[in-house]
Amino acid sequence: MTNAGTPSRPDSGTNLDPWYGLYADRTAGLSASEVRALFAVASRPEVVSLAGGMPFVSGLPAELVAGAFERMMRDNGPQALQYGSGQGVPALREQILEVMALEGIRASVDDVVVTTGSQHALELVSKLFLNPGDVVLAEGPSYVTAMVVFNSFQADINHVPMDEFGLIPQALREAIARIKAAGKTIKFLYTIPSFSNPAGVTLTWERRLEVLEICRDNEILVLEDNPYGLLYFDSPPPHAMRSVDEDGVIYLGTFSKTLAPGFRVGWALAPHAIREKLILANEAAVLSPSSFSQLMISEYLSAADWKGQIDTFRGIYQERRDAMLSALAEFLPQLRWTVPGGGFYVWATLPDNMDSKAMLPRAVRELVAYTPGTAFYADGSGRNNIRLSFCYPTPEFIREGIRRLSTVINGEIDLLNTFSQTTPLATVPLKQGIASPPSNIG
Amino acid sequence: MTNAGTPSRPDSGTNLDPWYGLYADRTAGLSASEVRALFAVASRPEVVSLAGGMPFVSGLPAELVAGAFERMMRDNGPQALQYGSGQGVPALREQILEVMALEGIRASVDDVVVTTGSQHALELVSKLFLNPGDVVLAEGPSYVTAMVVFNSFQADINHVPMDEFGLIPQALREAIARIKAAGKTIKFLYTIPSFSNPAGVTLTWERRLEVLEICRDNEILVLEDNPYGLLYFDSPPPHAMRSVDEDGVIYLGTFSKTLAPGFRVGWALAPHAIREKLILANEAAVLSPSSFSQLMISEYLSAADWKGQIDTFRGIYQERRDAMLSALAEFLPQLRWTVPGGGFYVWATLPDNMDSKAMLPRAVRELVAYTPGTAFYADGSGRNNIRLSFCYPTPEFIREGIRRLSTVINGEIDLLNTFSQTTPLATVPLKQGIASPPSNIG
Repeated sequence: MTNAGTPSRPDSGTNLDPWYGLYADRTAGLSASEVRALFAVASRPEVVSLAGGMPFVSGLPAELVAGAFERMMRDNGPQALQYGSGQGVPALREQILEVMALEGIRASVDDVVVTTGSQHALELVSKLFLNPGDVVLAEGPSYVTAMVVFNSFQADINHVPMDEFGLIPQALREAIARIKAAGKTIKFLYTIPSFSNPAGVTLTWERRLEVLEICRDNEILVLEDNPYGLLYFDSPPPHAMRSVDEDGVIYLGTFSKTLAPGFRVGWALAPHAIREKLILANEAAVLSPSSFSQLMISEYLSAADWKGQIDTFRGIYQERRDAMLSALAEFLPQLRWTVPGGGFYVWATLPDNMDSKAMLPRAVRELVAYTPGTAFYADGSGRNNIRLSFCYPTPEFIREGIRRLSTVINGEIDLLNTFSQTTPLATVPLKQGIASPPSNIG
Repeated sequence: MTNAGTPSRPDSGTNLDPWYGLYADRTAGLSASEVRALFAVASRPEVVSLAGGMPFVSGLPAELVAGAFERMMRDNGPQALQYGSGQGVPALREQILEVMALEGIRASVDDVVVTTGSQHALELVSKLFLNPGDVVLAEGPSYVTAMVVFNSFQADINHVPMDEFGLIPQALREAIARIKAAGKTIKFLYTIPSFSNPAGVTLTWERRLEVLEICRDNEILVLEDNPYGLLYFDSPPPHAMRSVDEDGVIYLGTFSKTLAPGFRVGWALAPHAIREKLILANEAAVLSPSSFSQLMISEYLSAADWKGQIDTFRGIYQERRDAMLSALAEFLPQLRWTVPGGGFYVWATLPDNMDSKAMLPRAVRELVAYTPGTAFYADGSGRNNIRLSFCYPTPEFIREGIRRLSTVINGEIDLLNTFSQTTPLATVPLKQGIASPPSNIG
């Protein structure tokens, strides 16, 4: 049936891939992330997964989705089934302005480009801006699949350190000076200023202004990714950086966390000139984002109490965050961790010479999963860090997961102490940088 | 509110775009297609548009969509709302095998990658394979937004001539020899072998085998794009090229024409080694294709008579094809055109020194739109060609559209004859290459 094995088939490279010699240079940078392999492991029902970033979609009443579907098919059936504009459905773009207004953003509907999740906005912006070797500045630690995208366009990712108040402006200045001195071009700063993934920290308002000023002075675009801003627990985060800089910021938003990721609808709000190119790139990539998904969301926003639904989600996630912080204080008081004011993640620091990636198989044997810290750095940092997600499991499972994790970590500490009698690991100074406020909750 | 106009804002390039100097090199290749501007014009209700490629989605009964939605939410609601696999929903991939079996393809479910329309498969394959300057071979004429993608990755598009039996194998050999002699690397051949867009012609079985052999001998991957194969009128097209070559062909399929484009669900069937990289590229770009769209389609395929629905579409489009061919014979007998055995398009050839792009504003004034032939070539060819779509308007509107077009074309011929008395244009030899069979229908 096939021509496999004919002598004329190209076979440069490996036997496994006859087309090995034909890939683009950039394809070498496209590798499976450490988080990816975890999805398979963590989906086993007996494992408590503190690894993934899946929102708790069961918190969304099915009748809200059904109502949106019925109205959409009644009023806009043919439009929902058809190709649409490469920029997105105009009615939805108007509604997106209302969503962004909650975080202080005033914008024109003309500058909103709907994308296939905000992930695709990351891809499109990277395609528009990144030549091989260009530098992208990213928080350290940073969102793993953003770095996968930057790498896939052969960018040189440089991290800027954070503390519990987010990106450190002075460290940003120093990084820029060092990179410029090396003769490299910095294209943009990628940041998740509110309830960051994975660190769970929030950039203060003063620092937002300072970071914008530094980037403006250095002709660096700011790529502000804000999936979690509306999912705050105690008090809202500072206004979006975009709220005070419409020319220097590309802002990314999404319905994945405030509604549901299955629709794959996000957006970019871009400076006017960039917006036009973004639409062209979007059209080349997908012709138009899904009309069906967009009109579903537009109907939902029109008729449902979407702000009330976000309040519901905030309550759910706050309860889970509290469960995680309590369990950490109860079972793992010897660690340090961040105290997120919103979002999905806690970032924990293990004793200095522990290796969270090497420990993961033992954790899975104990039926708990997390994401090793190295996944969130392009430079091998994060060896003794872990990201703990509280978004998906119930509070009971979170507590049980942390309990199982404590067994693993304490066992690990005992084991390492056995092999290094002189310096008990539990007393080694903890890694600096991101750290919890003075007193951990609980 | 903003910092517009601060002296430190970068302003290299134009005043309109302060970020002009920061774009990647590839962004220069990203330009608006000629078809794009037409969408705005052709959407005015008084214009008969023979320009777009919109399927007639109103031919799909709304109750089939509603039934799929209800079953999906009942059985798989949380899954539909959640992130999914970067490769696509397994159940849908199994069903895609059944769809492809209709065109002779046997494959493993492991080698199917679901994408955001087959357009996104084009983008991902291009990202995986194209370095700047790499050659892509494409039929002349070829699908306009495929060429937009290739250009956006800085490819060098070389056309291979077609006749009424599709791509000409000897011309392919000559093109390869010429390009290789120039020291360039050919990455793949892009082809729509069945009812091509825009030419409306179909590659014969003998030529399919010959083209595969030529590509195999020259280590060129074949990118077989097959949106229209199941929409045949008189008899099915030859089996897909992929049916006899599983190692040398990346096959692209879509539900956009046999169901509805609003879901944005297509797929790639790739050789095993390539498949893995395609999944990684898909994850980087969109994390996962829409679970909601995929499960809608999976439910539809499970419960609805989808083959019967394709028969319905075939009947609708056949009637429209016939209406167009009859109207061409009645109103524009002095032209030549292809006689498509399926799909959406007729390719017509105007007298030699006419310029279809220059004529378009006059056509729109007469309330008819078409796509100028130059849109389908990367090299400026197609000046006296037009693509006429019969997919969307009713037979009555198609006839009226061709009648209006005849007014424009005949007026144009009269005008040109007035300025060039010695050589009446209507008798100038017609462009060779794609031509209708000896006798036009009607």
